[in-house]
Amino acid sequence: MSMNSFGHIFRVTTWGESHGPALGATVDGCPPNIPLDAEMLQVWLDKRRPGQNKHTTQRNEPDQVRILSGVYDGKTTGTPIQLMIENTDQRSKDYGEIETTFRPGHADITYWQKYGIRDPRGGGRSSARETAARVAAGGVAREALKALLPGLQIKGYMTQMGALHLDRTKFDWDAIDQNPFWLPDNAAVQEWEDYLHHLRTREHDSVGAAIEVVVRGAPAGLGAPIYAKLDTDLTAAMMSINAVKGVEIGEGMAAAGLRGTENADEISMGDDGPLFSSNHAGGILGGISSGQDIVVRFAVKPTSSILTPRQSITKTGQPVEVVTKGRHDPCVGIRAVPVGEAMAACVMLDHVMLHRAQMGDGPRGKIG
Amino acid sequence: MSMNSFGHIFRVTTWGESHGPALGATVDGCPPNIPLDAEMLQVWLDKRRPGQNKHTTQRNEPDQVRILSGVYDGKTTGTPIQLMIENTDQRSKDYGEIETTFRPGHADITYWQKYGIRDPRGGGRSSARETAARVAAGGVAREALKALLPGLQIKGYMTQMGALHLDRTKFDWDAIDQNPFWLPDNAAVQEWEDYLHHLRTREHDSVGAAIEVVVRGAPAGLGAPIYAKLDTDLTAAMMSINAVKGVEIGEGMAAAGLRGTENADEISMGDDGPLFSSNHAGGILGGISSGQDIVVRFAVKPTSSILTPRQSITKTGQPVEVVTKGRHDPCVGIRAVPVGEAMAACVMLDHVMLHRAQMGDGPRGKIG
Amino acid sequence: MSMNSFGHIFRVTTWGESHGPALGATVDGCPPNIPLDAEMLQVWLDKRRPGQNKHTTQRNEPDQVRILSGVYDGKTTGTPIQLMIENTDQRSKDYGEIETTFRPGHADITYWQKYGIRDPRGGGRSSARETAARVAAGGVAREALKALLPGLQIKGYMTQMGALHLDRTKFDWDAIDQNPFWLPDNAAVQEWEDYLHHLRTREHDSVGAAIEVVVRGAPAGLGAPIYAKLDTDLTAAMMSINAVKGVEIGEGMAAAGLRGTENADEISMGDDGPLFSSNHAGGILGGISSGQDIVVRFAVKPTSSILTPRQSITKTGQPVEVVTKGRHDPCVGIRAVPVGEAMAACVMLDHVMLHRAQMGDGPRGKIG
Amino acid sequence: MSMNSFGHIFRVTTWGESHGPALGATVDGCPPNIPLDAEMLQVWLDKRRPGQNKHTTQRNEPDQVRILSGVYDGKTTGTPIQLMIENTDQRSKDYGEIETTFRPGHADITYWQKYGIRDPRGGGRSSARETAARVAAGGVAREALKALLPGLQIKGYMTQMGALHLDRTKFDWDAIDQNPFWLPDNAAVQEWEDYLHHLRTREHDSVGAAIEVVVRGAPAGLGAPIYAKLDTDLTAAMMSINAVKGVEIGEGMAAAGLRGTENADEISMGDDGPLFSSNHAGGILGGISSGQDIVVRFAVKPTSSILTPRQSITKTGQPVEVVTKGRHDPCVGIRAVPVGEAMAACVMLDHVMLHRAQMGDGPRGKIG
Repeated sequence: MSMNSFGHIFRVTTWGESHGPALGATVDGCPPNIPLDAEMLQVWLDKRRPGQNKHTTQRNEPDQVRILSGVYDGKTTGTPIQLMIENTDQRSKDYGEIETTFRPGHADITYWQKYGIRDPRGGGRSSARETAARVAAGGVAREALKALLPGLQIKGYMTQMGALHLDRTKFDWDAIDQNPFWLPDNAAVQEWEDYLHHLRTREHDSVGAAIEVVVRGAPAGLGAPIYAKLDTDLTAAMMSINAVKGVEIGEGMAAAGLRGTENADEISMGDDGPLFSSNHAGGILGGISSGQDIVVRFAVKPTSSILTPRQSITKTGQPVEVVTKGRHDPCVGIRAVPVGEAMAACVMLDHVMLHRAQMGDGPRGKIG
Repeated sequence: MSMNSFGHIFRVTTWGESHGPALGATVDGCPPNIPLDAEMLQVWLDKRRPGQNKHTTQRNEPDQVRILSGVYDGKTTGTPIQLMIENTDQRSKDYGEIETTFRPGHADITYWQKYGIRDPRGGGRSSARETAARVAAGGVAREALKALLPGLQIKGYMTQMGALHLDRTKFDWDAIDQNPFWLPDNAAVQEWEDYLHHLRTREHDSVGAAIEVVVRGAPAGLGAPIYAKLDTDLTAAMMSINAVKGVEIGEGMAAAGLRGTENADEISMGDDGPLFSSNHAGGILGGISSGQDIVVRFAVKPTSSILTPRQSITKTGQPVEVVTKGRHDPCVGIRAVPVGEAMAACVMLDHVMLHRAQMGDGPRGKIG
Repeated sequence: MSMNSFGHIFRVTTWGESHGPALGATVDGCPPNIPLDAEMLQVWLDKRRPGQNKHTTQRNEPDQVRILSGVYDGKTTGTPIQLMIENTDQRSKDYGEIETTFRPGHADITYWQKYGIRDPRGGGRSSARETAARVAAGGVAREALKALLPGLQIKGYMTQMGALHLDRTKFDWDAIDQNPFWLPDNAAVQEWEDYLHHLRTREHDSVGAAIEVVVRGAPAGLGAPIYAKLDTDLTAAMMSINAVKGVEIGEGMAAAGLRGTENADEISMGDDGPLFSSNHAGGILGGISSGQDIVVRFAVKPTSSILTPRQSITKTGQPVEVVTKGRHDPCVGIRAVPVGEAMAACVMLDHVMLHRAQMGDGPRGKIG
Repeated sequence: MSMNSFGHIFRVTTWGESHGPALGATVDGCPPNIPLDAEMLQVWLDKRRPGQNKHTTQRNEPDQVRILSGVYDGKTTGTPIQLMIENTDQRSKDYGEIETTFRPGHADITYWQKYGIRDPRGGGRSSARETAARVAAGGVAREALKALLPGLQIKGYMTQMGALHLDRTKFDWDAIDQNPFWLPDNAAVQEWEDYLHHLRTREHDSVGAAIEVVVRGAPAGLGAPIYAKLDTDLTAAMMSINAVKGVEIGEGMAAAGLRGTENADEISMGDDGPLFSSNHAGGILGGISSGQDIVVRFAVKPTSSILTPRQSITKTGQPVEVVTKGRHDPCVGIRAVPVGEAMAACVMLDHVMLHRAQMGDGPRGKIG
């Protein structure tokens, strides 16, 4: 059972509501002797933090993470690591009428229908604020991966924002960390900024996005078929992020339009092992990594919290017009980038551990 | 841990290889007192069975399922239900050279790299034949759902096969069961047949497909946020199916291109509860069902087993040209339809049970 | 996987070390709409708290629990409940030499051998202080059980302390809460006090204990055979408590000496259902509750932290004499009583939920 | 969730009823490349098999196990291993009246109360016959342990049968496999035989037993605190066996009567690592193995199926006298010996794998 947990062995349980005293993540199963302190995690939280640029929520919280357990003398001990982020700025007055009104496109109505009770302050448990806990847990996973798989890189970036698409011919891996959209094309940043500024200030609207996360440098052999396939677990991890509506591995949905002669990546022998002529598979075959770049992509819907009025109903079934005046991102997809990276980091570490459980550190099947 | 199991409470473990003595599913957690016999399951297996039409593998196995446990006097007892399908037609001589060769686009190479051993006969555990066990388990879930949620319907159909797309303006729910493509448009069937026939016999090629599964009649309130969301579990279930590369809920990847004013489904009050102006959400908000149709869609890549030669390598790293002469479907996506339905049935039952665990049969949050 | 979690659906994860900033429990799966506040939990923590009487550790901490999530407006929301207890009194100087020395009978040596690192302050994760988190979680379970099974009682009491045994002919259910030993015989309390006082002050020794926990008022039908039997889960819950070395259900180990004619509880028909002539079974048959009192009993070893010198070794393998000068209970079994109760409460709630998952609130098999 | 499964990574699901077509175990997570065939498992099944001597059930079934999956070319492949035992001798006529009658001391009544349906033939799922599947799975675990921990020994033996106790001063490890009671004292066998013969033929009675299982040669460091402690998992494994009412580790319940000066095992430095002056701990400290012999002991109640009449009721609540005429063991504890061994083997392998997941094959904390 895993209502608020994910992972097989590196197991993360997130807890907390948007406007409660605190939220966080309980991280179980981390390998011992991994160097860890709060600063290492803060880096990633700062990346996700609202108020980073003018396109993300202006709520100005430090999002300071504390490590309450599982670390001694600067190293993990193999026991549960409790990560807590206190909610210091809880302007719940902004959210008063949400208690009796269901915002279209939000989980207000379904939480109510399921539980018969919900914390309406800032969306409660269904708020995207929950992803801060994931990002903190992902930071732990990154530190463990550094020790277990040195050389592994995990990077997320935007490939689409509404009508704008990444031009893949200009793909620049190094540009990703240099602009507020994590866009692998610095030259396009101004256009993306203008587009979003116009959308927010003039059209009072929001927009969806597509994010791609690449894992580079993973060895072949990770993944546990049939139902803990690496692609299955990555897909589930991404789909669990707020507002995600689709997930793709490699070719993704476009595979439906391909022929066998186009899709299969041909294999040749390189100096260091097998080489593939292409990467339609997204680095995963039969649920197991092939040694190629692992490529997962997901779509985030536009936030429904906009200034433009929308029709809805109240708890008593009365019609009501909903206008969201609070602080909201015009494109929540931007902040989904570090969240997607964090989820990928957790899944990769989990699968390294799962592989070791069954196979140990011993030799894998050799080729050549 | 769940390498070969899925589900939280209604828990299915599949076992078996393509060319071993048998394969099957161990189904744990089924409610008691559900009428069940092998014939009820056979219906669904026959739907998935190879050799049903000229477009699917000619391997001619009866795929006869036996119930070895968990049923007494025609009813489930609440104990594990063992479903076994014996492999009667195991022409393993067809597959001889696979032992030393890695077929491009197949899991041959990754299974070898992971385990250092693999059963090469018919793809072993990575064969699509494993999905027969899922279909049998899905049959059990369907019978339980009949008792728990009478009126629920689960239907899968194709929406794309290579260059051909379903014309949604001609969507006909009743046509789905009337043609070999499970196409909701009988008038298009001839075109699809011709397309596939040409592809197979003239071009010696295969093609991808997109399948949509709709769950109609599910109550609001199913789904267990944050990490056992209904959409997360449905997505994982579909991604675990062989050859699936992308999964979408409602708008899916297209959500990346939408604006907030376009995407959010507005709410009004109907006679029997809330009504939605549209279903971009695919029936799920915040991971919980809203009472609308639940819509999940997935893409299946074209099989890599084709008569056209492809470049690859052997275990010793030697280059080799691979031509697959065995019996293979030109579009494995066709047979993925009943598999997707079966996975949806299992997930839905699981979530009904999960909901009852926390909430019992008691009242939900009322509206109006 | 569940290294630091227990429970199938009502799932508790404890975290924290004896002398870290805080410890606590992440409680997932609690039913919604259960009245809950910190005071309700504090009652049980106060019962377990050190310094309650002269026989338990003099460490004087308030052990104040805070609820950080999962509760809104005084009621549970169905989302994870984070319970945190800050460590305010961390005299770690008391524990300095433990870092290099292995105390006999403690987990110092095995934690070191397993992890290659350990938090030596107060025993770190292996400290009995971890049980405070269980007691808090047990308080949540009790409140939920009140709503789901009104009338259910869970009581723990001592049946043995070293050479002293409870005289069952004088068993007084109401006396249990009236004395510091939770002894169901007020007349014997003075003897127990004298015994323990002498042991501690004159003999510088400690002593073991046996605790019995009774669940009264549970309906028949709880328990999920074969591997989630009610007795299996209760037994595992008790064995996971620090220093426990044996667990019994009903007759327990004495069953080995009985004959069939002596052991089986005969059945007759009463006004409200089946009656049993005796309760050798401890209220559980085939892993399922029978409606009788559920009786589980466990033995706690004497603490190894005593003033009498013991032989041991250091990390470098040098011989060393260990004398524990810190604050320690002469009989840790006393404080194990509320812990055992808490574990029983969690297991019972978990099984009520598990039963509902499979069976709903519907009718059970009727007799008569 | 794990109603019919146990183990974290090496995960065993048993299925099947006493008189259905077959029963078996689905074994998931086994390491690959372990030599395995049916004969290796049959050895252990033959040890458990009824009809082995005059003291166990005369039902004469070959209990032939078949491996249906997960093995290729004589080696495990890392995929699920399906073990099936067909029920060839199903004299269900012997059990006719059980359908309407509840046998005292049996699970008849609680299965009925829980599920509202039960398979009465031979006790259905609650029959001790289910343990044959465990023994087969334990055989797989033993083969994997041979490869992972060469030198490990797992032996079970009786320490008590009713009024008779093993004389530990005459303990002979080599005698265990030489007599039908697995008694470590050949000289006492005749007395045990006479006792049991008299009990069965003259007194028409049955008797309880205590079994001890020792794991010799396990390295220090196995076990995953807090809730997957090695002793917790061993205890749960034993308690899940039919008719078990108590489980002890090392001193067990007797620890309640000991003092700290008596109980803690003192430590000194030997040539190959730490040495302990005694083994009151049963080889486990803080849930982690210490390198000493791991000692677990459990009590099996006397079977309630005896020729002596017992009072009970029928489904309709009518009083009835129950006499069990079928084939039943006077001491089911005898056959519990190989079952206990099998459970211990599964738990040990599971913990070796769990340890590798978190720690890999790397170095442990060193002493000296």
